[in-house]
Amino acid sequence: MSRPNDRAPAAVRPVTITRHFTKHAEGSVLVEFGNTRVLCTASVDTCVPRFLKGKGQGWVTAEYGMLPRSTHSRMNREAASGKQGGRTLEIQRLIARSLRAAVDLTALGEHTITVDCDVLQADGGTRTASITGACVALVDALNWMVGKGMLKQSPLKQMVAAVSVGIHNGQAICDLEYVEDSAAETDMNVVMTEDGRLIEVQGTAEGEPFTHEELLAMLALAKDGIDQIIEVQKASLE
Amino acid sequence: MSRPNDRAPAAVRPVTITRHFTKHAEGSVLVEFGNTRVLCTASVDTCVPRFLKGKGQGWVTAEYGMLPRSTHSRMNREAASGKQGGRTLEIQRLIARSLRAAVDLTALGEHTITVDCDVLQADGGTRTASITGACVALVDALNWMVGKGMLKQSPLKQMVAAVSVGIHNGQAICDLEYVEDSAAETDMNVVMTEDGRLIEVQGTAEGEPFTHEELLAMLALAKDGIDQIIEVQKASLE
Amino acid sequence: MSRPNDRAPAAVRPVTITRHFTKHAEGSVLVEFGNTRVLCTASVDTCVPRFLKGKGQGWVTAEYGMLPRSTHSRMNREAASGKQGGRTLEIQRLIARSLRAAVDLTALGEHTITVDCDVLQADGGTRTASITGACVALVDALNWMVGKGMLKQSPLKQMVAAVSVGIHNGQAICDLEYVEDSAAETDMNVVMTEDGRLIEVQGTAEGEPFTHEELLAMLALAKDGIDQIIEVQKASLE
Amino acid sequence: MSRPNDRAPAAVRPVTITRHFTKHAEGSVLVEFGNTRVLCTASVDTCVPRFLKGKGQGWVTAEYGMLPRSTHSRMNREAASGKQGGRTLEIQRLIARSLRAAVDLTALGEHTITVDCDVLQADGGTRTASITGACVALVDALNWMVGKGMLKQSPLKQMVAAVSVGIHNGQAICDLEYVEDSAAETDMNVVMTEDGRLIEVQGTAEGEPFTHEELLAMLALAKDGIDQIIEVQKASLE
Amino acid sequence: MSRPNDRAPAAVRPVTITRHFTKHAEGSVLVEFGNTRVLCTASVDTCVPRFLKGKGQGWVTAEYGMLPRSTHSRMNREAASGKQGGRTLEIQRLIARSLRAAVDLTALGEHTITVDCDVLQADGGTRTASITGACVALVDALNWMVGKGMLKQSPLKQMVAAVSVGIHNGQAICDLEYVEDSAAETDMNVVMTEDGRLIEVQGTAEGEPFTHEELLAMLALAKDGIDQIIEVQKASLE
Amino acid sequence: MSRPNDRAPAAVRPVTITRHFTKHAEGSVLVEFGNTRVLCTASVDTCVPRFLKGKGQGWVTAEYGMLPRSTHSRMNREAASGKQGGRTLEIQRLIARSLRAAVDLTALGEHTITVDCDVLQADGGTRTASITGACVALVDALNWMVGKGMLKQSPLKQMVAAVSVGIHNGQAICDLEYVEDSAAETDMNVVMTEDGRLIEVQGTAEGEPFTHEELLAMLALAKDGIDQIIEVQKASLE
Repeated sequence: MSRPNDRAPAAVRPVTITRHFTKHAEGSVLVEFGNTRVLCTASVDTCVPRFLKGKGQGWVTAEYGMLPRSTHSRMNREAASGKQGGRTLEIQRLIARSLRAAVDLTALGEHTITVDCDVLQADGGTRTASITGACVALVDALNWMVGKGMLKQSPLKQMVAAVSVGIHNGQAICDLEYVEDSAAETDMNVVMTEDGRLIEVQGTAEGEPFTHEELLAMLALAKDGIDQIIEVQKASLE
Repeated sequence: MSRPNDRAPAAVRPVTITRHFTKHAEGSVLVEFGNTRVLCTASVDTCVPRFLKGKGQGWVTAEYGMLPRSTHSRMNREAASGKQGGRTLEIQRLIARSLRAAVDLTALGEHTITVDCDVLQADGGTRTASITGACVALVDALNWMVGKGMLKQSPLKQMVAAVSVGIHNGQAICDLEYVEDSAAETDMNVVMTEDGRLIEVQGTAEGEPFTHEELLAMLALAKDGIDQIIEVQKASLE
Repeated sequence: MSRPNDRAPAAVRPVTITRHFTKHAEGSVLVEFGNTRVLCTASVDTCVPRFLKGKGQGWVTAEYGMLPRSTHSRMNREAASGKQGGRTLEIQRLIARSLRAAVDLTALGEHTITVDCDVLQADGGTRTASITGACVALVDALNWMVGKGMLKQSPLKQMVAAVSVGIHNGQAICDLEYVEDSAAETDMNVVMTEDGRLIEVQGTAEGEPFTHEELLAMLALAKDGIDQIIEVQKASLE
Repeated sequence: MSRPNDRAPAAVRPVTITRHFTKHAEGSVLVEFGNTRVLCTASVDTCVPRFLKGKGQGWVTAEYGMLPRSTHSRMNREAASGKQGGRTLEIQRLIARSLRAAVDLTALGEHTITVDCDVLQADGGTRTASITGACVALVDALNWMVGKGMLKQSPLKQMVAAVSVGIHNGQAICDLEYVEDSAAETDMNVVMTEDGRLIEVQGTAEGEPFTHEELLAMLALAKDGIDQIIEVQKASLE
Repeated sequence: MSRPNDRAPAAVRPVTITRHFTKHAEGSVLVEFGNTRVLCTASVDTCVPRFLKGKGQGWVTAEYGMLPRSTHSRMNREAASGKQGGRTLEIQRLIARSLRAAVDLTALGEHTITVDCDVLQADGGTRTASITGACVALVDALNWMVGKGMLKQSPLKQMVAAVSVGIHNGQAICDLEYVEDSAAETDMNVVMTEDGRLIEVQGTAEGEPFTHEELLAMLALAKDGIDQIIEVQKASLE
Repeated sequence: MSRPNDRAPAAVRPVTITRHFTKHAEGSVLVEFGNTRVLCTASVDTCVPRFLKGKGQGWVTAEYGMLPRSTHSRMNREAASGKQGGRTLEIQRLIARSLRAAVDLTALGEHTITVDCDVLQADGGTRTASITGACVALVDALNWMVGKGMLKQSPLKQMVAAVSVGIHNGQAICDLEYVEDSAAETDMNVVMTEDGRLIEVQGTAEGEPFTHEELLAMLALAKDGIDQIIEVQKASLE
């Protein structure tokens, strides 16, 4: 069974990274995975959360949101309903953990970097696109700090990127778009470093449970996809 | 005393309107007044709020938000703090009233159009830019309804646009950018129809009270500025 | 077309100001515009909000509320519904800005005055009655501070008062009561100083847009009305 | 040890009941116990809460609030802090239970009466003053319903009134004002019917526990005090 | 008319107290009154609330909750609905006041003890069971502090226990279980010290008002019941 | 490096399942993994959420909470702070998805089963213990429905259980207790069916990223652990 636009099972959608998309943030990146578009801004603050006061290290955190009409039908605005939903909180915790794996927090010193990922248009894979774009915005913010003399050198340890994989019609596929995601039997998000190690693996059987072999097939696709995506990240930073 | 970029007191910043900026919404417009950039999406719903049930008329409403790093320093995300602030509520009420003046609500039938105005980058005048862009998104949504056969003809009565004016260093100026807005003695937002009548006038003395003559000077600038802005709206719709 | 009780278009309803209406507050005023009755209390606090700490100036703020059955049909209590609505926030921001225009905040020193305006009975014009009564309560609180030796002299710059004006049946009228307000084509609130300058102008077309000439007619009525109201304020303070 | 103004231990402060204090509510009463002043409004609604739908009976409920500066120092406004405190909820539950004891809910039919008790000025005993005034507002609302033909006759079963009693300096006293209340060892609120039976007894040892004999002494004072208060209620209704 | 299981009107259900029910808390007690089961944990903190800072005394507070399915039909989880209901707040205020009567707060020093009472299974009398179990958990926490050298000796003044009494079918009964509680004409909660003095008396007529004689009959049953319950408390502590 | 109590890397702590722990719920299970103790209750409701109305299928959902002193130091009560945290929401979404994989929702008909998992004592692995206990409570509730004639036969498809695995000091270990969990480099939760297929895999690098080989080692431990746990589930149901 074929994918939309006859995409091959292992193919990632065109990934585009536009730096300096807005002008106020220390890092500002528009990331696109096909029709999924997320604005990622990194903001530098010269303090740390209360639980880190006086510990001589920094912090990286993230927030995630979807514009009400980034989706097919309009969603309620979370600011109006008075709280962030469980999905939102879950995603922003995932993004933040992934970014912290990219940075030497001790070398960052007592600074906090907050990365906001706001989805302008959604077509599947918003959380993995967010991580991918957020990492580039984070790199720009760290370099800005070096440029300002706040840090001697960038505390970046490695690039981090993410992709979604899944089982659809019994076949493992990479980088699901919305029509695939909503019909997939299994959906898995994988976050990796540029040296091929794993930061997060989150696989969920939406319908039937999946087998160990299917897990391995999805992991292999994720590894290849993330390698390609990290190439795009690096090219954008040159 | 001169304005940034030697702008003339009566000059409006370059206004750009990009339609179809995102793909899901029935109307989707990116509006730019200089460095102020707002994404306005119009969503059509086939029901009406409870207080209008069975009254044979439609409704137009609006919501407004700023991305956390649309501003010079990062603001708290309203979804995270658990409520929309007074400024946000005030602005979205203003946008909604302005848009309702553009539409024959009875001819709209029992439909609701919600226009979301989300500020991607702020440099003064976000509420007037929002009204200006929202009106174009609304027109697109109404035409989409006609195209779908939901309405026989568009219930649009007239174009509506807005601009800010103010008194700065004793002089009336039009379309204040952030550095002017934050230093102005008086700030006034004016919403007008294309035939030059007034929908909203909101003038506030930030420092010294203003005189009747200053009010008249600001209104004259607003009239000229809005005439130019409505030209841009119309050109974008051709 | 005649007004209720054959009131002339330019006539303000009987305005009554009762000082010392309750005993705990430093300033406590019951203000009545016809059947509209608002209790305004001014409370002195010996600190300032965080954003003013150490800046050597004071602050004046306001809160507004309506008792649930101050209106024709009972409204939900905002404390029970868990948040203040947009209208409430908008009004209390307006009252606070208006009062700050009356006071030299530097001369006030590091003190905060909070004015609470609680509507006991509503019949149109509650926000303009609130500003009018709040200014007298503020004067009493400032004089109380002088009496206590907290200030050498009152930092009052000028009296401030407000009135609503509107267009009803094509005619400009002053100080709308509820039946007029709910049917008016245009409603405008004007806040002025005793020397005739403007602090706030907020005009809204509820139905048809209004013309420049109608705006001028409303402003003229507002000027006359506010002159009369300031007379009542001053008489009450003698 | 003497009480303020040499009041006798068993003496109730002057109690005043002003009916028709505001004009919109079906029952509107200003009740004063000395310097304690509470506005009680009763609102009639032609529906019942969900849990009573179709059960052929009515409901009486109550809400309680204090204006921010009804007290010696300003309290935060509950609408602004986003929730009603425990004390508020406890008091309004007490008022509502007391009022329901006064009415034959089946004879009331499928109507709800909401009584709002808003404290304009507090000097001890606001909850007992509220119950006392609320009962008169409720009677007026029931009679209004009879006048409108909504009920054949008033479903009032009996008058209900309340008073606080306490132990202060080892002596039982009646109707505590604020300076006594804040220093009392024991504070007890008693709600009674006109035939001398009990609806609520809520006694709390603030300092030392109290004895059975002290409880009896307080109950005796409460009985006498409430008898006097019911006389005032009845006189106000003639 | 007989009670369930032919219980005598004055009989208390079997009361069981299991100390050290969980391992982390300084005091942890499972208290059972028949089928009512409440887990009471006492937590010691080395600070005091803001209003007591620097006053050289400690504080005892309490929180109360019911597991969603501790009751016959499932209740909404208060954490999910976003606020604690009025009943919850009322009960935890009652528990806290009762516990504070058991402790010399000055001798406690600047420490706070928080007692959490969580209902695992409800069958009437959860608040009185909570007070009874909480007092034992509190004693354990105080003794733990002595053992740790935080206090020279326990600041316990006396044991405190509670029971519910009521009027059911015209008869005074002690320790109502759910089927009795929900049908009783009058329900009263009594909190006493081991020397027979009163800390709290809260009697409520659910149906008909109650007489002075009924009040005395309920108090007598409460006194006997609490004497028995305090025996169980003491036995558990040996 | 050895584990606490010299536990073998692959060893699961003693798992105990006590059915009918409380009496009101249709399914009520106390599950213990060593010192971790969770009360799981399943409640049957004869309706479905709005989004499933009329679709001829049922729903299974879950809520999760920790008692404030289930942990080493007291946590704030979520009901008091006014919202459920991100971790709570994430866990209850995980539990619910896992349980839905165990049931044929169409065969369940238009019923909702809500499983509440409340942690009485925490020592690592509360979410996996919750899933394990919740599945048994769910089975009991389904059988109760069959017993009541609400269903012809149980719609249970398979047993579901969960365990945590991790990398600690470079070694893969199974069923981490708190001291291990807080120090592990990688933590992974695995949910499986009795036929060895996967429902959820959630692995997170807390410190260094993990390798593909480490992932495989953890999965192997999880498979063995879950096999043992499902044995305990089945034994408890006989």
